Amino acid sequence: MTTTLLRTADAWYVQTDTGAVTIDTSATTTGELLRDRVAIDAAAGGDGGVPVETLALLSPVTAPCRVVAQMTNFTSHVKDSGMDPKTVPLTFFRKASGSINGPSDDIVKPAHVRFMDYEVEIGLVFGRELPVGTTLTESNLADYIAGLVVTNDVSARDVQLPKTQFYEAKSYPTFTPVGPALVLLDADELMRFGELRLQLSVNGEVRQNSVVAADMIYRPLRALQELTRFQRMDVGDLLLTGTPAGTALSAPPKPIEIIGSLIPPALKWKSFFKSQARNPKYLHDGDIVEATVATDDKAIDLGTQRAVVRYA
Amino acid sequence: MTTTLLRTADAWYVQTDTGAVTIDTSATTTGELLRDRVAIDAAAGGDGGVPVETLALLSPVTAPCRVVAQMTNFTSHVKDSGMDPKTVPLTFFRKASGSINGPSDDIVKPAHVRFMDYEVEIGLVFGRELPVGTTLTESNLADYIAGLVVTNDVSARDVQLPKTQFYEAKSYPTFTPVGPALVLLDADELMRFGELRLQLSVNGEVRQNSVVAADMIYRPLRALQELTRFQRMDVGDLLLTGTPAGTALSAPPKPIEIIGSLIPPALKWKSFFKSQARNPKYLHDGDIVEATVATDDKAIDLGTQRAVVRYA
Repeated sequence: MTTTLLRTADAWYVQTDTGAVTIDTSATTTGELLRDRVAIDAAAGGDGGVPVETLALLSPVTAPCRVVAQMTNFTSHVKDSGMDPKTVPLTFFRKASGSINGPSDDIVKPAHVRFMDYEVEIGLVFGRELPVGTTLTESNLADYIAGLVVTNDVSARDVQLPKTQFYEAKSYPTFTPVGPALVLLDADELMRFGELRLQLSVNGEVRQNSVVAADMIYRPLRALQELTRFQRMDVGDLLLTGTPAGTALSAPPKPIEIIGSLIPPALKWKSFFKSQARNPKYLHDGDIVEATVATDDKAIDLGTQRAVVRYA
Repeated sequence: MTTTLLRTADAWYVQTDTGAVTIDTSATTTGELLRDRVAIDAAAGGDGGVPVETLALLSPVTAPCRVVAQMTNFTSHVKDSGMDPKTVPLTFFRKASGSINGPSDDIVKPAHVRFMDYEVEIGLVFGRELPVGTTLTESNLADYIAGLVVTNDVSARDVQLPKTQFYEAKSYPTFTPVGPALVLLDADELMRFGELRLQLSVNGEVRQNSVVAADMIYRPLRALQELTRFQRMDVGDLLLTGTPAGTALSAPPKPIEIIGSLIPPALKWKSFFKSQARNPKYLHDGDIVEATVATDDKAIDLGTQRAVVRYA
């Protein structure tokens, strides 16, 4: 059975059938907590606890930590972005961990951003150090992945596309809602990764809805084999694994893209974002964004995060 | 007068007229050392010391730390890359700090990389925390920038271009030689930033040679004003400020680029790298790469790093 970890400003909890049981630990970071497995297990075996609804939950992943993300990693999203799923490379970028946000905190649009978009993603949280050159196999993968979290890779499209590097556009404060829970999985549970369904709605309208097995291109084993060619990961670090179709941004049709390649980039983007101004799907002040990840039988359930969008 | 800091496996030094004087400090990281200014100043006022040539120097910037880099930031390099200096955006990406290498260490090409390139850059090392939202002006800039280092932003072009995100291609171990020295500057000295000349040679042949004032697009003040919209920096973190023309990679001519936009990316890159295979400027096993940054009057002199290229 999975172990569901929660965090508030002053404590860590395990969510049990009877409530949220406080973990007796001195850990202040996610990395420290994950190294204190005895305390986690003791709380998981406890009873009583407080109702989860009474807790003001923070991100179960603490900053600073490394936040690495996979680019275009779902067939549906790759097609949506005007690329070919058969040739799209396995690609990573970084997000500032200062962008980590609680599961109920507002997502705040900086004043200079015009087109703010959402991307529900599964986050992997590491439970063991992965130095560069680590040998990863199907059989040791679960030794390194402690558990999973719901994440939203919020993106300023009018910054991201002209700059080409995704780092800034996805790193503003509040641009990485994480949680509500960090769900620890054993090796058998991790084998069910493909059954996870990602869903995101805006004001109750479902925008993203996809199951990993049918859609994800580079699964965690392959991704981590390639990531550890150049980047070590430590306990408590976070990898976002990509988003399915349904974001506000859709690529322009092919003929327009080809014409676009003949004009200077600055003009091309001006024209593109002029057309995007008529796209109602970007996030607006007061919008409610709900993101959830679970297997359909709820045996693995990472919970639901619910954020309100605010314009700075 | 500038203060030149050096680091070996077991000590920190200030380079003086009489030799390298040991700093009496318990600092193990660059951040800790920079907070121990009393110890640095004591060593700077000391005499005696050991000949610098006898020291096995390590990078004066210790890992882990944040390594942020500016994309295409010199007019000459932007033109070389087929872009327009008037419209190129101020853009950042991340490098893994595990790529930091000593100033005399080998630069090692991973087996899967074919086209390894060099980029001499000036690195800024921070001496005071910059939280997101810090207000930076000409008059307080020197409070935040502790000093400067010579860096080489080594790049695997056949990874960088198809993946579009620069993070992996510039993050392999040994891909960020730093040093030989961390040179601390006061506010007046930092005002001379524009006079710094960057030079890089391969086997004695000068490939890059450019002065900041004539060539750099987004200077440190502007860059940090924009960086701190989304990324905090801490004491000991590193910002690379871009490279001038002269790298091995040159963009294909415009007509070829337009034809390229009509064919699928995978085919386009295959054809591009087929042509690059005839370009002799990429780094080869045994090549000697020397990089240096200084004002022409040597009042500010970051020193010279000298690395040998090795194929894994």
